[in-house]
Parts: sequence; structure tokens; C-alpha cells
Amino acid sequence: MGCLEAERKIIGWAARDPSGVLSPYTYTLRNTGAEDVYIKVICCGICHTDIHQAKNELGMSNYPMVPGHEVVGEVVETGSEVTKFKAGDIVGVGCLVGCCKSCRPCNADVEQYCNKKIWSYNDVYLDGKPTQGGFSAAMVVHQKFVAKIPEGMAPEQAAPLLCAGVTVYSPLKHFGLNQSGLRGAILGLGGVGHMGVLIAKAMGHHVTVISSSDKKRVEALEHLGADDYLVSSDSARMQEVADSLDYIIDTVPAGHPLEPYLSLLKLDGKLILMGVISTPLQFVSPMLMIGRKSITGSFIGSMKETEEVLEFCKEKGVASMIEVVKMDYVNNALERLEKNDVRYRFVVDVVGSKLIE
Amino acid sequence: MGCLEAERKIIGWAARDPSGVLSPYTYTLRNTGAEDVYIKVICCGICHTDIHQAKNELGMSNYPMVPGHEVVGEVVETGSEVTKFKAGDIVGVGCLVGCCKSCRPCNADVEQYCNKKIWSYNDVYLDGKPTQGGFSAAMVVHQKFVAKIPEGMAPEQAAPLLCAGVTVYSPLKHFGLNQSGLRGAILGLGGVGHMGVLIAKAMGHHVTVISSSDKKRVEALEHLGADDYLVSSDSARMQEVADSLDYIIDTVPAGHPLEPYLSLLKLDGKLILMGVISTPLQFVSPMLMIGRKSITGSFIGSMKETEEVLEFCKEKGVASMIEVVKMDYVNNALERLEKNDVRYRFVVDVVGSKLIE
Repeated sequence: MGCLEAERKIIGWAARDPSGVLSPYTYTLRNTGAEDVYIKVICCGICHTDIHQAKNELGMSNYPMVPGHEVVGEVVETGSEVTKFKAGDIVGVGCLVGCCKSCRPCNADVEQYCNKKIWSYNDVYLDGKPTQGGFSAAMVVHQKFVAKIPEGMAPEQAAPLLCAGVTVYSPLKHFGLNQSGLRGAILGLGGVGHMGVLIAKAMGHHVTVISSSDKKRVEALEHLGADDYLVSSDSARMQEVADSLDYIIDTVPAGHPLEPYLSLLKLDGKLILMGVISTPLQFVSPMLMIGRKSITGSFIGSMKETEEVLEFCKEKGVASMIEVVKMDYVNNALERLEKNDVRYRFVVDVVGSKLIE
Repeated sequence: MGCLEAERKIIGWAARDPSGVLSPYTYTLRNTGAEDVYIKVICCGICHTDIHQAKNELGMSNYPMVPGHEVVGEVVETGSEVTKFKAGDIVGVGCLVGCCKSCRPCNADVEQYCNKKIWSYNDVYLDGKPTQGGFSAAMVVHQKFVAKIPEGMAPEQAAPLLCAGVTVYSPLKHFGLNQSGLRGAILGLGGVGHMGVLIAKAMGHHVTVISSSDKKRVEALEHLGADDYLVSSDSARMQEVADSLDYIIDTVPAGHPLEPYLSLLKLDGKLILMGVISTPLQFVSPMLMIGRKSITGSFIGSMKETEEVLEFCKEKGVASMIEVVKMDYVNNALERLEKNDVRYRFVVDVVGSKLIE
């Protein structure tokens, strides 16, 4: 557990403006505090949110910004009060690096709903300095926001679980939808959707993929192991599946009608929204009342759930479909992700990339 | 337990056409089958749905139609296989008189969600004849759809519990919102809303009435015992209550914005819709995701819940605010109800009215 003060200046790849183009950027990490863990980054998944943030599409970006919130790394140094981790441990960091620790959500271990949560990047830490993410050589993170990667799990397999994985795991667990034998559907087959198919299958569910076209049928059924594939415009098949599903995980990130999907749910079924959609979504009240159905939403997951999903995927042998790229390919990767041209998650091999300015 | 075959011709008050005006109507009840209960009607509550049906506002009315689905009566005769009831018992009948008994909802004792449920009136019974409701001298009802009125509960107090009461009790129970100490709100103070305030208070909740105007403040706080009164256009007060409620029971029967109310809910809060609204309701997905809130709906209640709410209200001394009228006032009552000119439920004193053609 050496002192790394001499190595505090590090290189990450940062967006500089709303073009969203990333390039090498040198910055300084804070000293490793008593409860902090200094992590050398091994790899980092690319999430659609990284594009939104890098391009200021949510209107609250600050530059330079080093994205990346599916970070797997090796512990190099720990603060004096860190008991959970030691140098050499393989660990993960997700979307958050801070919370107030005293509000109702924090006390209930769902700190992702804390109003004072601190994002892994494009946020301001307690020391007043900007937070920077995982497309970088290293991070210093409070131990509460560090998860142990289970032994034997490949770092690049762990990375997508830290955001996409826990994002689908969390509502399935919370809403009591994690027992086997349920019938679920995943609407939209992107990074989160593909993780949803794998995790729901591992929970023992009958999983239907719903898509607007037939394009991903073979992938869904043969590569991801879905049980059924439903094209939303095929009214005969939609009618056939009506009143049969316990839940639908809706990952569509743009406005879309809800009623065709509500009609697929059975008594007490839940439509769980995961896409941040700023245009209004619509429904008529009898669609919920007759069948006591719910429209609900869920937002990433807690650290507790992150640890759970890592263990769950280790135990069940869940292996996500990823494409590993080097850091100097990150801008191409972002461009391809924007066109959904990836099956299904890019992971940047950070440690194997030369991070030089 | 005499045979009443000679008395089977009875008088009810029926709507004859979409004017919705009720007038005396003679019809014949079916014989009391093995599992049937012959009930002499004592009184019957008036629900807003009675207006919709009498006036064909839902487009599926058949005439002549005897409305009334909050029926309290005295058992006069029972079929050979009826064990639960005996002559002289005071019993209630609500919205339903039949279901398939074999589907998933029926097997789960939530027969109100059975696709083959039979309505108390304006429906067709198993014998092919129209069902007729409680604005009549008598009804013959299968024992499954008859509830015992607790000893000592006044019939006119029991009547509103058979639809309005169980309609609010059912979701509070189902969604685990019946423990004490919760903070809830009732949106809209009509027949169902006023029952909601009384039942939620009896459950030990802090209850806020939300209304579009200040008109019902004194009634809500002083007569019904609500803890707070919130005018939805008072943005300062709305802000004050934000992020504080476990649930909102939304009884508004017309299109309205949902977001002001979603913002009042705290983590995991539920907006429970009770109004059949055919114009689309809207929301944006982050309103649900950030706080894992739900929009859901609920539809009347089961016979099991009907028995529960009757016992609950007996035990807690819940007394609804009713206006008792005679049958020959029913058309005035319907007219006044349509203008919300009632505090809060009309109950027709059937046995005390002369039912003559």
C-alpha cells in the first residue's frame, strides 16, 4: 500500500465541447482520503448516456469532461479507514461516487434516489472539483461507491453490469419480479435491453423480445437465448400475447405509444420504463384499472444491488455480448453506438491502451 | 324459509331510454336456485356510474334497466346449498353477481378482474335474462356475491361501502398501503373521495384532500377529519408538500394533468387512478424513474375485500356522510348527483318507499 502522491497527475480522454469528440487530457486526482480507494482503471464500458453528456444533449455538461461510468480497475492504494478493499483487488465503479448518507433513500440503501447524489463524472465532488469518469488511467473513489468484482469474472464482462446490468436487475428485484417462472418482455434491444434478456433468462423467466422490426430476431432468439420475438406491428401476434406478461422492461429512449404494450400485461403486470423521454407518454386510465396494471420507472441501481448483480451473474454464468476496443477507437465507438451499430456494448480496454497526451 | 314463487313479480324503478329518467317497472325474478339468496331490498346507494348507465353514456345500455349496485337487504329465502346465509340476515350486494370461477383472477379471489364477470345490472345472467339492480323490491343473487353486513351496522351506512368503500379499500390493501403512519392524499372529494378520506383516516394515515378550489376546505377538514387541504393551483403549498406522500387516490373522472401530483409523491409513491377517463393522460418518464414512482389503477373490489371493508368500518366506527331519500326522489337525486350537489352519497330508502306501478 504505497503512497502514490507522485503519480497523481493522470491522463484521461475528455470531451472539450459539444462536438463530443474525446481526446487525451491531463488532470490531477485528489489525494486518497481516509475512506477513499485509488483505482488503476482496467477497462470501462460505453453507455448511451456518455454520448448525451459528451455532446451536452442534456444541457448541463461542463468541459473538459472525462466520461465513463462502467469502470473496472485494480486497487492500488486505500485510505486508512478502508476495510473492505486492499491493494490488488479487482473492483468496479458505476454511475455514482457520492450521496448525502442521511436522507430517506440513503437510509434505505437506495442512494441512487438521493437528491444530493454525485455522478461519477460531469458533477462536482465534495472538494469542489469536477468529477471525472473511467476513460482514464485512474480514479479515486469513496469506498461506499466501490464494488468488489467476484473472483474469476473477467473485467470486461463485469463492466457492463455496473450500469446496464444493475439498471435491469434493480427493478426486477425491487418489484418482486426475480422469482423463476415469470413471463417478461424486453422492449428495445440495445445495451440495457440485451442485458435485460440475459438477466431475465438467468432468473428463469420466459423472455420475449419486442421490437419494431424483424431485424434482430435471429440475434435475440439464437445469440441471446430469448424465448419469443414479437414485432410490435404484427397485430395478430400482439393479440396472441395479450394478457400474458408479468412485466415489460421498456428501454425505448424516445416517445412511443404505451397502450399496445399495456395490453400485453396480465393482472397486476408492470410496465417498467427505463428510457429518459422528455416528450409526454400517454395512456387511458381503464388500461390500468382493468387489470390493476402499473406504469412505473426505475433508475440505475444501488451499490447493494450492484454487488448483488455481480454475484448473480457470476453464479449464473451470465456473459454479455461486448466488443472490446482500444481508447484511440473511442470516438469511432461513440459514433457507432449512436447508430446502434454494436452488439451490444462497447468496452474500452483502458489498461491495454497507451494513454499519452 | 318459505317458498316465494307467488311473489316473484316485483317492482323496480327502471330507465327506459337514454333520458335516464327512472320510473316504476314490473319484472320477474328468477327462481331461487340451489346457491341463490332471495333478498328483500332495504336500501341502495346511488353511484355516479348509475347515471352513466341510465343515460347510455358508456354506449352499452339496454332498457328497461333497473340501476343500483350498493344494495343492502334482508334474506328472505335461501337455496338448498346456501350455508352462509339464513332468512333474516342483513346482507349486501355490490357491483357484481357473477364470474367464471376458473380464471386466474377468480382463482386469486379478485373476481372483479374476471373477463366474464356479470354486472349487477345492465348485463345478461347465466339464464340469458337481463340482470336488474337494487332500485327494486327484491333481488335473487348467487351466494358468492352476497356479503354479510356486520351486526349493529345500519343498512344505510353499509350501502356506500359496497361500491365506493371497497373501491378505495381494495387498492390500499393490495398495494400494502393499509398500515398506519402513512401519508396519503385524496384527489377529488365526491362519493368515492369522501369514503377515501374516512377509510384512510381510520387506517391511521395523515390525509390530505387535494381539490381544484377552496370550496370544500371546511367540509374536508372539519366534517371528514382530513389533516390537510391543498388547492392544486396553489404552487407554494404544492411545493411544500412535494416529495412527501406515499400515495394519492385520484378520483377525478375527467382528463387532468398528472405531473403536479406525481411530484407530491415520495420514493416508491403510487398514484392510484379510479376515474374511467377515455381521453389520454400524460406524463414524462423521468417523473416516474426518479423516485421509482408508479401510476396504477384499481377497479372496485372483490367480495373478500367487501367483507373486509364492512368489518373494518364496523370496527373503526367509520360513518359515511349520506343523504337518505325515498324512491320517488331518485330522479332528483340523480340530477343533483350529476351536479355534485350531495354530501356525499345518496342512499335510497327502498323498503320505506311505496313501490307501486
